[in-house]
Amino acid sequence: MSWLLDESHLADLSRGATLLGTGGGGDPYIGRLLVAEAIKEHGPITVLDPDEVDDDLFVIPTAMMGAPTVMVEKIPRGTEPVLALRTLEAHLGRTAQATMPIECGGLNSMIPLLVAARAGLPIIDADGMGRAFPELQMETFSVYGVHASPMVVAGDRHETVIVDTGDDDVRMERLSRACAIQFGGAALIAEYAMTGADVKRVAIPRTLSLGIGAGRAIREAREEHRDPFAALAEFFAGTIYQNVRPLFRGKVSDVERRTVGGFTRGGCTVAGFDGGELELRFQNEHLLALRDGEPVCVVPDLICVLDDTSAEPITTESLRYGQRVVVLGISTPPIMRTPEALAVFGPAAFGLEQPFVPVEELVSERFSEPVAV
Amino acid sequence: MSWLLDESHLADLSRGATLLGTGGGGDPYIGRLLVAEAIKEHGPITVLDPDEVDDDLFVIPTAMMGAPTVMVEKIPRGTEPVLALRTLEAHLGRTAQATMPIECGGLNSMIPLLVAARAGLPIIDADGMGRAFPELQMETFSVYGVHASPMVVAGDRHETVIVDTGDDDVRMERLSRACAIQFGGAALIAEYAMTGADVKRVAIPRTLSLGIGAGRAIREAREEHRDPFAALAEFFAGTIYQNVRPLFRGKVSDVERRTVGGFTRGGCTVAGFDGGELELRFQNEHLLALRDGEPVCVVPDLICVLDDTSAEPITTESLRYGQRVVVLGISTPPIMRTPEALAVFGPAAFGLEQPFVPVEELVSERFSEPVAV
Repeated sequence: MSWLLDESHLADLSRGATLLGTGGGGDPYIGRLLVAEAIKEHGPITVLDPDEVDDDLFVIPTAMMGAPTVMVEKIPRGTEPVLALRTLEAHLGRTAQATMPIECGGLNSMIPLLVAARAGLPIIDADGMGRAFPELQMETFSVYGVHASPMVVAGDRHETVIVDTGDDDVRMERLSRACAIQFGGAALIAEYAMTGADVKRVAIPRTLSLGIGAGRAIREAREEHRDPFAALAEFFAGTIYQNVRPLFRGKVSDVERRTVGGFTRGGCTVAGFDGGELELRFQNEHLLALRDGEPVCVVPDLICVLDDTSAEPITTESLRYGQRVVVLGISTPPIMRTPEALAVFGPAAFGLEQPFVPVEELVSERFSEPVAV
Repeated sequence: MSWLLDESHLADLSRGATLLGTGGGGDPYIGRLLVAEAIKEHGPITVLDPDEVDDDLFVIPTAMMGAPTVMVEKIPRGTEPVLALRTLEAHLGRTAQATMPIECGGLNSMIPLLVAARAGLPIIDADGMGRAFPELQMETFSVYGVHASPMVVAGDRHETVIVDTGDDDVRMERLSRACAIQFGGAALIAEYAMTGADVKRVAIPRTLSLGIGAGRAIREAREEHRDPFAALAEFFAGTIYQNVRPLFRGKVSDVERRTVGGFTRGGCTVAGFDGGELELRFQNEHLLALRDGEPVCVVPDLICVLDDTSAEPITTESLRYGQRVVVLGISTPPIMRTPEALAVFGPAAFGLEQPFVPVEELVSERFSEPVAV
């Protein structure tokens, strides 16, 4: 059923999207302000359930690309993502009837809402990453045969670039990334144009609602003085993400972070309150969690770092020495764990040697057994 | 008057274009082979005099961009420049009635001929650099108000990128350069679409003929056992380039060359047979010649390094220790020496401190006075 998204949803979505961003995706704060402004001006946004859209609905997803460290400092005008959409429409000679997120983590939960509000389009409650990923080919869209080209990259001086690499989405990523770097490290994009029938086949359903629900679970637990981590576990148990596992609890003892090649790369060490340590490695997003040297959560499963009392999610560019954190592992839905999907965004795609093993197999503790957190 | 260019012109053009390349523009050898092949298949190419084209003729110039060191090793398929043209036509919704060089030096004297032969278009005997320059905004087209956008960059896997930066040709250069680097360091382009009326106003006329004439002057002097340098001086005296000045004669004693940011950068020292030394600095093309520390030729005037007996022009990527060379300075036409033009491709545009002074004012020797060479 379609529903209306208004300003009252944005705080929960912002928190939930930061969680689903698994460290990356860019802090949604600026995007949230832009969306709030746009909703004030243009009214609430119609959200379409992916299972109910017409098969011939024409959809153009929109997003921001770039290093999160840049995205939090380089504030978009707000008009570029609509420019990207309009430029792709003109190029294709077809008018979009809806937009859709390409990822459901971080800032990119907000950008398509901004486009929806400003262009007067509905948004589809689905995406192609089911979290945040650092590269644009890392999409279930691409995995299951909908390609990004032609795509549009737009800059803040309203420059546009239309990239067409045919079926080669890795090459599309390299080219558009080079353009985003020229645009100052971040740019707005429109890509992966598809039909409603494609959406049903290749998108991860209801991840916009998922973000709102996760954010709401944390907020309500706080308001009702319940354990927000248990609340999260309970919330996800009712979704296709299903399993939440406590990975570690401790103090951030080391952070190494650099912005290279348009990405934020690095690692983080968490020293356990009860001894031991957790090592995290990231490229924009967390990719691998090693507890005392042993893998406990591997990409594409979600590795989420949260403040240990408020359960506020912490992005990789906000990690600081001394933060007291809880680290959670969350299982991804089956569509993201097929061999085809793992080939595109599993550990080997990031140069990691660890094979993918589902987090629920690596870690047996649950939140009903109050052991690790 | 229009005329037909066939295979018999290509050796002279290749030699003359290397000379006009002033060290850069890429060795035309591969391009020449591709054009010869295309002429064999499709017949001779109609060359249009720029003063005689219809004012409403629609012209799309074509070229290759990239570091010369890459262009000589990364052989194009031959189909990319036509793809670039066709992609720009589709984007603009207008069919090209002619192509034109954007530079008259090196490889880019050949690429538009390849397009003309393969696409069955005439070529206009003019260009926008009057030599070779390393960057795409360094065009009389841009100086006098015809901008590059929208432009197309095409790669050897038939990927295309359409860049639109409005009136900002420097930004166009940065973006397309980033794409060319992603394409392996070189790419084929279509840009600066314009009308016949624009051509008359902003292009440097008859530089295709100029290249053929310069190449022919060297060849005929060799065949007739005349001094090829005097022959060149005599040939240019009858053109808008007019002044040829002997700058130096000696042996290459040092070459420093690196491929950075998509360019070939470096310098070269020539030790004089009669003492003294000449220092050359280049970014793809020669930019500055210092004789015993004093400027004797400054960009945009042409600095040409030739073999000291055969007068074969030597490109920056072919400079080797021990080569015996003659270095010539050649004056550029008035359209390239206006304050607006010098702001875009004069010495300051390359970060050089020397002001532009015409070569004929810096060096008084002529070839009729056999002093320096």
